[in-house]
Amino acid sequence: MKKAVVLLSGGVDSATTAAIARSEGYSIFALSFNYGQRHARELESAKKIARSLNAKEHLVISFNLGSIGGSALTSPELEVPKNEALPPPGGIPITYVPARNTIFLSFALSWAEKLEAPDIFIGANAVDYSGYPDCRPEYLQAFEKMANLATKISIEGKLRFRVMAPLLYMAKSEIIKKGTELGLDYALTWSCYDPLPDGTPCMRCDSCLFRAKGFRETGLKDPLIKD
Amino acid sequence: MKKAVVLLSGGVDSATTAAIARSEGYSIFALSFNYGQRHARELESAKKIARSLNAKEHLVISFNLGSIGGSALTSPELEVPKNEALPPPGGIPITYVPARNTIFLSFALSWAEKLEAPDIFIGANAVDYSGYPDCRPEYLQAFEKMANLATKISIEGKLRFRVMAPLLYMAKSEIIKKGTELGLDYALTWSCYDPLPDGTPCMRCDSCLFRAKGFRETGLKDPLIKD
Repeated sequence: MKKAVVLLSGGVDSATTAAIARSEGYSIFALSFNYGQRHARELESAKKIARSLNAKEHLVISFNLGSIGGSALTSPELEVPKNEALPPPGGIPITYVPARNTIFLSFALSWAEKLEAPDIFIGANAVDYSGYPDCRPEYLQAFEKMANLATKISIEGKLRFRVMAPLLYMAKSEIIKKGTELGLDYALTWSCYDPLPDGTPCMRCDSCLFRAKGFRETGLKDPLIKD
Repeated sequence: MKKAVVLLSGGVDSATTAAIARSEGYSIFALSFNYGQRHARELESAKKIARSLNAKEHLVISFNLGSIGGSALTSPELEVPKNEALPPPGGIPITYVPARNTIFLSFALSWAEKLEAPDIFIGANAVDYSGYPDCRPEYLQAFEKMANLATKISIEGKLRFRVMAPLLYMAKSEIIKKGTELGLDYALTWSCYDPLPDGTPCMRCDSCLFRAKGFRETGLKDPLIKD
């Protein structure tokens, strides 16, 4: 069985990406990060999703991006914007975490080299997204090129790494349709950046809004939302 | 004063790199990692060097690369090779840590974006080195290119990141001469991968051997070595 490292945050996109990798016959090595995010709640979801997809391993790496700061997701003093409409106004929002996907993909590359897994899956999406630079195709291509110059296994010619982003050009509704077809249970996922004190999604951050848009456009009910 | 993030392991190369950045008028933001390395002793050195160079800040980020493994520096069950000669026999040695510089540079990029510091210094050297792929110029160029596609500040055109590797083509002896000219105290540094139980350098790992070669070729005495 071919191996893949799959970045798994616990949200709709990464869960669907993992389900796609699984459906393509990969043995899944799921990788999550406890990085000081406000919504560490997503890690419970990542754990459940990894289990539901029979991941071979689920590794959680911990570090504190709060010590760097610069994002509403890691700095308690910065508020997560609550918007009425999408796309978010004013360009790339303050929920952007400096170089986050580069950090995540770098750990994925390290593990992939150790496992001799050529393919690294990421749920990056450049359609229904907040404009984060590290979700765009030109970024992912540059990372892949760098990765193949960075590692012993690649420069020795034993393996060539690929960064796989199957959702890159899909609307959120298409993503949810695809995951539903594959039997993914979206009740296991978590999207909200700024959970309410009672542990429910805020329904007003960009991540909640994109999720709601996706379910609305598919005509499916979000199993995470109670009536 | 222009700002630079400087990767500072605590060894000869990173300390000299920091001294060069300082001599070029940079305000230094030193970045070190507690990553489960066998020679965490180097972090004491990094702290002293950062202080001696009046670093504006010294940030230590912690995570455990032992959970990924694949290197004698992070896996206690793998032995650090003890050699008689340089370059190390058999190609890239087992002290290579999968994708380590990519992980380190990714955190540096994150901090540099937060600080609005365009320049990231790394003590990579492709002359007196163990052949690690992530010390070579083609790798560093690919990282720089990726970095400028990865970040909000760069794609908005506000800043262009540069990966600065002033030691890239210098022999170890030239590095030590340069640092000595700049007043760097090499007694503060640490190189050994596998310290002896009494806390002294093993003098037989590649890192010790490269260091000894450098001092021998300069005709200077290594202040870390007791008579």
